[in-house]
Amino acid sequence: MTIRAVVWGENVHEQTNEIVAEIYPDGMHETIAAALRQDGITATTATLQDPEHGLTNTRLAETDVLLWWGHAAHGDVSDEVVERVADHVNAGMGLILLHSAHFAKIFKRLMGTPCNLTWREAGERERIWVTSRNHPIAAGLPDQFALENEEMYGEPFGVPEPLETVFISWFQGGEVFRSGLTYKRGAGNVFYFRPGHETYPTYHDPNIQTVLCNAVRWAFNPAPRVKDVNDAPNVPVDQALEPIEERGPRLHKDGEEGYR
Amino acid sequence: MTIRAVVWGENVHEQTNEIVAEIYPDGMHETIAAALRQDGITATTATLQDPEHGLTNTRLAETDVLLWWGHAAHGDVSDEVVERVADHVNAGMGLILLHSAHFAKIFKRLMGTPCNLTWREAGERERIWVTSRNHPIAAGLPDQFALENEEMYGEPFGVPEPLETVFISWFQGGEVFRSGLTYKRGAGNVFYFRPGHETYPTYHDPNIQTVLCNAVRWAFNPAPRVKDVNDAPNVPVDQALEPIEERGPRLHKDGEEGYR
Amino acid sequence: MTIRAVVWGENVHEQTNEIVAEIYPDGMHETIAAALRQDGITATTATLQDPEHGLTNTRLAETDVLLWWGHAAHGDVSDEVVERVADHVNAGMGLILLHSAHFAKIFKRLMGTPCNLTWREAGERERIWVTSRNHPIAAGLPDQFALENEEMYGEPFGVPEPLETVFISWFQGGEVFRSGLTYKRGAGNVFYFRPGHETYPTYHDPNIQTVLCNAVRWAFNPAPRVKDVNDAPNVPVDQALEPIEERGPRLHKDGEEGYR
Amino acid sequence: MTIRAVVWGENVHEQTNEIVAEIYPDGMHETIAAALRQDGITATTATLQDPEHGLTNTRLAETDVLLWWGHAAHGDVSDEVVERVADHVNAGMGLILLHSAHFAKIFKRLMGTPCNLTWREAGERERIWVTSRNHPIAAGLPDQFALENEEMYGEPFGVPEPLETVFISWFQGGEVFRSGLTYKRGAGNVFYFRPGHETYPTYHDPNIQTVLCNAVRWAFNPAPRVKDVNDAPNVPVDQALEPIEERGPRLHKDGEEGYR
Repeated sequence: MTIRAVVWGENVHEQTNEIVAEIYPDGMHETIAAALRQDGITATTATLQDPEHGLTNTRLAETDVLLWWGHAAHGDVSDEVVERVADHVNAGMGLILLHSAHFAKIFKRLMGTPCNLTWREAGERERIWVTSRNHPIAAGLPDQFALENEEMYGEPFGVPEPLETVFISWFQGGEVFRSGLTYKRGAGNVFYFRPGHETYPTYHDPNIQTVLCNAVRWAFNPAPRVKDVNDAPNVPVDQALEPIEERGPRLHKDGEEGYR
Repeated sequence: MTIRAVVWGENVHEQTNEIVAEIYPDGMHETIAAALRQDGITATTATLQDPEHGLTNTRLAETDVLLWWGHAAHGDVSDEVVERVADHVNAGMGLILLHSAHFAKIFKRLMGTPCNLTWREAGERERIWVTSRNHPIAAGLPDQFALENEEMYGEPFGVPEPLETVFISWFQGGEVFRSGLTYKRGAGNVFYFRPGHETYPTYHDPNIQTVLCNAVRWAFNPAPRVKDVNDAPNVPVDQALEPIEERGPRLHKDGEEGYR
Repeated sequence: MTIRAVVWGENVHEQTNEIVAEIYPDGMHETIAAALRQDGITATTATLQDPEHGLTNTRLAETDVLLWWGHAAHGDVSDEVVERVADHVNAGMGLILLHSAHFAKIFKRLMGTPCNLTWREAGERERIWVTSRNHPIAAGLPDQFALENEEMYGEPFGVPEPLETVFISWFQGGEVFRSGLTYKRGAGNVFYFRPGHETYPTYHDPNIQTVLCNAVRWAFNPAPRVKDVNDAPNVPVDQALEPIEERGPRLHKDGEEGYR
Repeated sequence: MTIRAVVWGENVHEQTNEIVAEIYPDGMHETIAAALRQDGITATTATLQDPEHGLTNTRLAETDVLLWWGHAAHGDVSDEVVERVADHVNAGMGLILLHSAHFAKIFKRLMGTPCNLTWREAGERERIWVTSRNHPIAAGLPDQFALENEEMYGEPFGVPEPLETVFISWFQGGEVFRSGLTYKRGAGNVFYFRPGHETYPTYHDPNIQTVLCNAVRWAFNPAPRVKDVNDAPNVPVDQALEPIEERGPRLHKDGEEGYR
């Protein structure tokens, strides 16, 4: 069975900006999905404009890894869908956040921090360095590769310390940025990957496509999704692993649900 | 200047449950604050019932470390106050979550995970082991100390991997739990500490009081709070550290705010 | 191509202690290797008594994951072989340390810490809890499983903070222990797994065998081993990615090797 | 009581290279120690040429934080002194590694990895960015500061994933480097800080001096040093915290030392 990825695209600038439409005539999400398919991944797409943004509970239950690109319309994403995605990540779905998705509701929801940064749109050169040698997400890459035109994102990047820093970017204008960061939230693997400003052909770049394919394989958790992912079950005294006797005062009656 | 701590107490069971009222006649928050004061910390209290739960922006701006105990009324905490506290933590305020605050809105907001666990209220014995030797939060403690009666919390605990695991608990009924966990969110130090069920005299225990005082000192960040903690400033091309020339197409005009 | 594992066994108590010989007539290494083979892993064995302990450079170059069990004869392992194994780990070979290998030279070499603990040999009950839900090393396991007779290892465990804590053990006598810890050293994945005292049939336990098979798959890094793993190459000025001119005084001549 | 720092300097190029001697007429160690004293830290120095390199057991027992600069003569440092320093770090002494000390025996001993990197001596510009906002080691610094002339160190840097990445450097020639990394080894806080090539006046730079003073305060652990830091004590059955009865076969007799 192949890995089932869903590429979620905001799909706004592709419809409203001629430059973006020319670079990505079928949408950025479709370019990304095509790259994944080339690598043997079963990739479909979903967009902001779809009912429930294309992310119904049924769809997510059949999604191994979700990739997310958003920029101009973060605020239009429904809070209900964000909570749904968060639940699926915590239950084991992989999630890959792309570029301006640093400000996506779902990323801020999972990180708990501002996820802010400095930025400059000048088409400057970006050099992406591998910092975690032989990390599966960096498989097949040289120690460094360049993108001739990219938007600058600069430190400090307002995210929690990651599990691992996989990439760091150098920018022509003097900034650096932690461009590849891994996290785990519940049973779900989460990867943030910086490049991908919509006015440049970044997602057509072979090295970038290699990272995306690697990241999908890395984020994939083959275990069955965790059931009742927010439950906090009571363990009755008579089912304790070691025999104990109840002592002292209690708040709760047997079998009662805890407070939330 | 001493450290300024605010102990936030839900203050519900102290008012409604005779057992709790007897153990903590002035409220759990007041018992905790008194222990901090004994150690030279300037400690005041705030409760759910106060206007804005006692956590106005002005109050938080003058708070170095906030301690949070809640249980029965997590849902009654205003979302606006939760966001306000999160902003202050990200800007540098320390935060200490106590016991059932694992399900406090502010903890789930900062962790991004379910923060769930298993539990049993049987007054069983808990043994708390130090796993990070000589960690400042464990200063003055033996390698292990016991609480004769506590509620059990069991793994798996649905939180992100911490910066450091400081304590692990052993329970009589056969469970274990990561009872002391450190995190950093933005510029703010965050500590979760497990013990403290309200029907037992846990916060009167000298070892527990030692941990609380240590944790306040550890969480204190003397740096001025980060201003505009959610801002993502644009760096104009002509202010780049290294001289660059603008190239390629753009989405944004000079000085424009980015999307959020 | 299947994963190539080598199970290294000290093979001392199997030869000198009747109890151990009875439980593991072919040696602990052979019992472990057989369990891996059942799961489709290509597993061979090596022992202390083999020339170069069975770990020549050629053999290691063809080893994807090395499992290490030692106890009575840590001091008899040659320092040269330890350095060789360390180089292969840093270059990408997986390494799994079993039980009393907490004091193996190779583990202390890779951790940089004392790797010490408290212990008691009383055949007491151990309960192993999963703390990192759906971690690949815990695949197929319940949240908890027990070993009726094991040696106790207690905290504080003198190791660096791991990447992830996967298992924590509860012991009947009141102790806890971080029993499953992941690390990365260079390009190599490292896993420490606590159970496995030689006077008990631990490696015949199906849950333990599941962990070992999972751990081998987790530790396997399919990337080609890093070449010249200790090199620190000079980048000549005329090969800098961005054009720079040499400025200021120098210590080194062109093409010179750095100091070590 | 003030913090007692010892600045260890290799003191080779100051004696043999005119450029270095001119910049640091009293040795780099003395320049660093003077900066620490300005900040109220009690700083003394020790060098390679001193008996036992100036690092007797008595001296180390009275050292809160050790700073280490070495380059040309790593191989001349005695293995016995390295083990002694490692023991003190594991027992709670702070350690700060400076620049070319990435290849110091003590750093490789504590990291377990090659600690290698790429390098270029061209006097190029380095920009040091803060990545962990309001980290105590970055106190008083702007988000970025520059050194006009420095040696380049480039990624991948062969070290374990740190507890926190505090600084990342940008180099004029196109490289990046994780320049400020925190670790904990046993009870000891460890910090690696990149800048400081001996042919440039780096340690006279006010921002660099700020980092060094901050790092000493951060690394200082006021707890008494851990005694018998490599011990693995046996816990006799009759001293178990919870009553247990000995069961099953044993290897060890009561009170026996374990294997090492």
